[in-house]
Amino acid sequence: MKSTQTSNRRAAVVDMTASPYCTLRPVPVSAVRLTDDFWAPRITTNREATIPSQLKHCEETGRIDNFRRASGKITGEFVGIYFNDSDVYKWMEAASWSLAAHPDARLEADLDAVIAEVASAQEADGYLDTYFTGDRIRLRFANLKDMHEIYCAGHLFQAAVAHFRATGKRTLLDVALRLADHLYDRFGPERKPGACGHEEAEMGLVELYRVVGDRRYLDLAKRMIDVRGAKPPVLGGSPYHQDHQPFKDQDEMIGHAVRHLYLCCGAADVVAETGDTELLQALDRLWQNFTRKKMYVTGGAGSRWEGEAFGADYELPNTRAYTETCAAIGSVMWNWRMLHLTGLAQYADLIELTLYNAILPGISLDGKSYFYQNPLADRGKHRREPWFGCACCPPNVARLLASLPGYFYSTGDDGIAVHLYAKSTAQIEINPGASVTIRQETDYPWSGDVALHLDSVPDREFTLYLRVPFWVDDELVTLSVNGEDQTEALTGEPGMYRAIRRQWVAGDTVELSLPMPVELVESHPYVLNNRGRVALQRGPLVYCFEQADNPEFDPWDLAIGSGTQFKSEGIEIDGQSVIAINVDGLTRTDVDPQDTLYSSYSGEWDEDFKPVSARAIPYYAWANREAGPMVVWVPVRPQE
Amino acid sequence: MKSTQTSNRRAAVVDMTASPYCTLRPVPVSAVRLTDDFWAPRITTNREATIPSQLKHCEETGRIDNFRRASGKITGEFVGIYFNDSDVYKWMEAASWSLAAHPDARLEADLDAVIAEVASAQEADGYLDTYFTGDRIRLRFANLKDMHEIYCAGHLFQAAVAHFRATGKRTLLDVALRLADHLYDRFGPERKPGACGHEEAEMGLVELYRVVGDRRYLDLAKRMIDVRGAKPPVLGGSPYHQDHQPFKDQDEMIGHAVRHLYLCCGAADVVAETGDTELLQALDRLWQNFTRKKMYVTGGAGSRWEGEAFGADYELPNTRAYTETCAAIGSVMWNWRMLHLTGLAQYADLIELTLYNAILPGISLDGKSYFYQNPLADRGKHRREPWFGCACCPPNVARLLASLPGYFYSTGDDGIAVHLYAKSTAQIEINPGASVTIRQETDYPWSGDVALHLDSVPDREFTLYLRVPFWVDDELVTLSVNGEDQTEALTGEPGMYRAIRRQWVAGDTVELSLPMPVELVESHPYVLNNRGRVALQRGPLVYCFEQADNPEFDPWDLAIGSGTQFKSEGIEIDGQSVIAINVDGLTRTDVDPQDTLYSSYSGEWDEDFKPVSARAIPYYAWANREAGPMVVWVPVRPQE
Repeated sequence: MKSTQTSNRRAAVVDMTASPYCTLRPVPVSAVRLTDDFWAPRITTNREATIPSQLKHCEETGRIDNFRRASGKITGEFVGIYFNDSDVYKWMEAASWSLAAHPDARLEADLDAVIAEVASAQEADGYLDTYFTGDRIRLRFANLKDMHEIYCAGHLFQAAVAHFRATGKRTLLDVALRLADHLYDRFGPERKPGACGHEEAEMGLVELYRVVGDRRYLDLAKRMIDVRGAKPPVLGGSPYHQDHQPFKDQDEMIGHAVRHLYLCCGAADVVAETGDTELLQALDRLWQNFTRKKMYVTGGAGSRWEGEAFGADYELPNTRAYTETCAAIGSVMWNWRMLHLTGLAQYADLIELTLYNAILPGISLDGKSYFYQNPLADRGKHRREPWFGCACCPPNVARLLASLPGYFYSTGDDGIAVHLYAKSTAQIEINPGASVTIRQETDYPWSGDVALHLDSVPDREFTLYLRVPFWVDDELVTLSVNGEDQTEALTGEPGMYRAIRRQWVAGDTVELSLPMPVELVESHPYVLNNRGRVALQRGPLVYCFEQADNPEFDPWDLAIGSGTQFKSEGIEIDGQSVIAINVDGLTRTDVDPQDTLYSSYSGEWDEDFKPVSARAIPYYAWANREAGPMVVWVPVRPQE
Repeated sequence: MKSTQTSNRRAAVVDMTASPYCTLRPVPVSAVRLTDDFWAPRITTNREATIPSQLKHCEETGRIDNFRRASGKITGEFVGIYFNDSDVYKWMEAASWSLAAHPDARLEADLDAVIAEVASAQEADGYLDTYFTGDRIRLRFANLKDMHEIYCAGHLFQAAVAHFRATGKRTLLDVALRLADHLYDRFGPERKPGACGHEEAEMGLVELYRVVGDRRYLDLAKRMIDVRGAKPPVLGGSPYHQDHQPFKDQDEMIGHAVRHLYLCCGAADVVAETGDTELLQALDRLWQNFTRKKMYVTGGAGSRWEGEAFGADYELPNTRAYTETCAAIGSVMWNWRMLHLTGLAQYADLIELTLYNAILPGISLDGKSYFYQNPLADRGKHRREPWFGCACCPPNVARLLASLPGYFYSTGDDGIAVHLYAKSTAQIEINPGASVTIRQETDYPWSGDVALHLDSVPDREFTLYLRVPFWVDDELVTLSVNGEDQTEALTGEPGMYRAIRRQWVAGDTVELSLPMPVELVESHPYVLNNRGRVALQRGPLVYCFEQADNPEFDPWDLAIGSGTQFKSEGIEIDGQSVIAINVDGLTRTDVDPQDTLYSSYSGEWDEDFKPVSARAIPYYAWANREAGPMVVWVPVRPQE
């Protein structure tokens, strides 16, 4: 099937391959094969446990029956929340990316069956939303602000694009195009302006444009971005919906976190195709606001439970962190687009940080239960659940993990950028007919020693861009090519790509060493709740102290000294190997049996503390054993 | 008019005078005349500015028109939120208490006019709720959980009781009784169980019982408490409505804070009349949970914006503190009842703390604008407003301030308990025909030196119980009678009443000295966001650092040393005298122009700090000048 191969060649997570305003071009998901002990088993678990169990949840909760009902195959009322179609679409996208990376006849058959149900539910005019059927037909598009119709359509678009790119089949793509045409007829130029209260469709529309080249979809996406902040407002005018201000004027991440992050994704997609400088400048301001004022140390986003929203600047509570798993995914999606627009490593840095510390905690080690919120401190009550009534996060994690191989590399005009490190093999086409095979040997993220073997190279010079992450001490990094030290090439600041340009020879080996001592991280002092506290970071991983590793004391009573020594040790959690950090800490001994809430200040560090051996584990691994208190930010005792 | 005088003699804030299970009995609001510089001007402002301006707001926002509409005097649709009637009732209660303390013909006429509107709106069957008129008649009592009908009735009951006690007029009382009868017929014994999603009516019903002696009202109140936590649930079964568990089994303050606090008030009222030990034990458990796990240092209650709710144990965020002014008032109302049930000073301590630090911040110094939420740290964006769409707090503050004189004393079987201190004169009947005139001379809350002059006494022994507040250092307190040291009488722990029993002679003077050095207060370490921080307290007042007093640095950059000396200084804020605290502090000098959110730990106290003179003001006075950052909990640098 030629079409399959053709499309699979372009199975990039976001296909900016031909986007005129991008600096980098993504490589197909299928180009990279992970063979490591960290990601490869997770992707396998995603394929073998997560994706099948999610299909089962979608069936059992009536999410797929809603399509059968809409097509008249079964009778009864719509079941569940009005945006439940989107969970099915996200599952379809996850299944598609999984197929792109790893053909699987059973999964493909399951997916085809679901696609058939979805296609049957589409109306003759292209409309598709199973909630707005029967008596609710008259309510279609009557409440754009709240009812997520266009949002659901957007997830269909993304699923359809992934499915086409992965399999070459047009079954879902044609459904998506008919619905996109319907939306265009309703909300395109010359029509009444409209957009969704929950952004999402913008990026889906741009991706449809990239697949079929029909500029109407790009125009509609642009129009949906430009409609925000209109006077009078089209979507109610609130920051919750990012409708308080035109996007091009925005400079603060605000309102519902997932929505604002998805809006940024859509705007970045439009910039990639149009070069709109006002939108690009807004994106830069928003990114600065996010990363300097509103981001958790994990990369997590969204501080408030109320409105699932960004907080004020520096408002980053720990126990009540909302940090929705979907928001972290939205951040990775946004940073992925920014990375390709600009080629700047700061975006890849944030993708790595967020992947390990804000997305991975959202799924259990066995791949079958999920966090919606990801607090950075807890008393042991917050536990993952197998599914949710509002189940946006589970299939969002699944589609991200399924597409993960696509995030490791990009190509530029003169070479290859290496964004992420893991044991893997990649075949990367840097120009038509000119491919490079890169084999990474590394124990990343546990070790920062990475060997990149160029097993095959084209007969031309090209540059290898290696990301030196923001967390590394620049003076400790070393680089060699075929054993010859090239450390002097490591000019510049951490958090940048280091370029090595040469006529490579098959068998060349680049060795990059990124030392990973444990770092104590502190927050800006205006993050009032973190003052006097530090988080432990080792390489890209943020750590936490959990009761399960520290039976002798309550982790909320732990403090560490600022001159503390750390010792890394391999341990197993739920059968998976992690590097734990052992540390000589202190715990309170003056525990007040009355639990007095307020008392006269005793001179905090004059209290009796006793030394304890404490152990920290990667934050992503918490809550996989018995429930108990957990804390990321621990008080630090100043050195005497 | 004899009836007026009779009722005025009983114008107690909550008339537990004849409650069989109370240890103490309140004194009438009219018995105490405040002549001090702190409360007296506030009560005058309340009468002259606050109460008239609130009537104007009620008129201008259509709240009173809703009654005119219900009675058919004007046409049109109900305006505003469905529970807006309650704001009018709370205003009526405020006006009534004000009349009890200070007759005012103009205010009485205004009140009579509003009462006439309310009375006209009542239906023949006693029903009264202006939202459920016209097309909504069929929805009456259809949604007890959400629609606040019985809640509004409860505020009418409280207003009617206050009005009757203050003026002797039955105009509003008769309206209330007809509505109470209507509720009894609907929800009394043998009927379908019902209660309100927002508790309030329970205490109003018990007060009606106290006024007219009709036991049905007490039975209905008890039934409404007992219905909570029923299986199957009557009110949805959620903690938000305190419907997750029978009240008698509850041990955690949870859900909507004002609701739970009001429920506790109603339960305490029922205990006062019935002696129900299960309810009393639940109240004690809930009070322990509140004060040991869920209370702000100000006495404020309710940590979460979402659901206006209590948080988990130790969840007491500062910038996003919700601490609704109404919740603080609910706490005072609850503690007032607990105080009379038990005679324990801990409840009076909390009343004092909450009055000064959690209710007073809710109203501007000029008495014309209000806080709904009371954060303990802010960047200068949170400002008081003249009114709200949901205007529960403003008239709640007004009714509390109007009734404040009633909170100073109670009587017991053998004497008088002095709860609060302020320059004042009180005439207190300890038995029929046996009165004591107490004149307090003091600069409280700025000084803890209190002279109590017994200007007239009956010819019998009685005990004077003096509250020694929880915040005082017991070893520094002194007590004398007519200049003779009686300090040895000060046995026991702080936070108790000290008893002096004797045959008093007119002209006796008791001098109590409660030294008020500045105290540094720390939190339980599980209040993670306060670790390493202290709050300043002087006497009953909690302090804060505000930009207006500290132009040279940002208060969020301030730290103080643990051995810091403090100097009190009288200053003026918006024309009002306060004692400020001057302190030698430190501010950061390493302000990062990049505002990096996370960086390697530098050893916090090794950073460059420079000494600064800083000034703290009472927290209640913040946000009365130009907007700017404010903080209560400041980092403390351990002593070298």
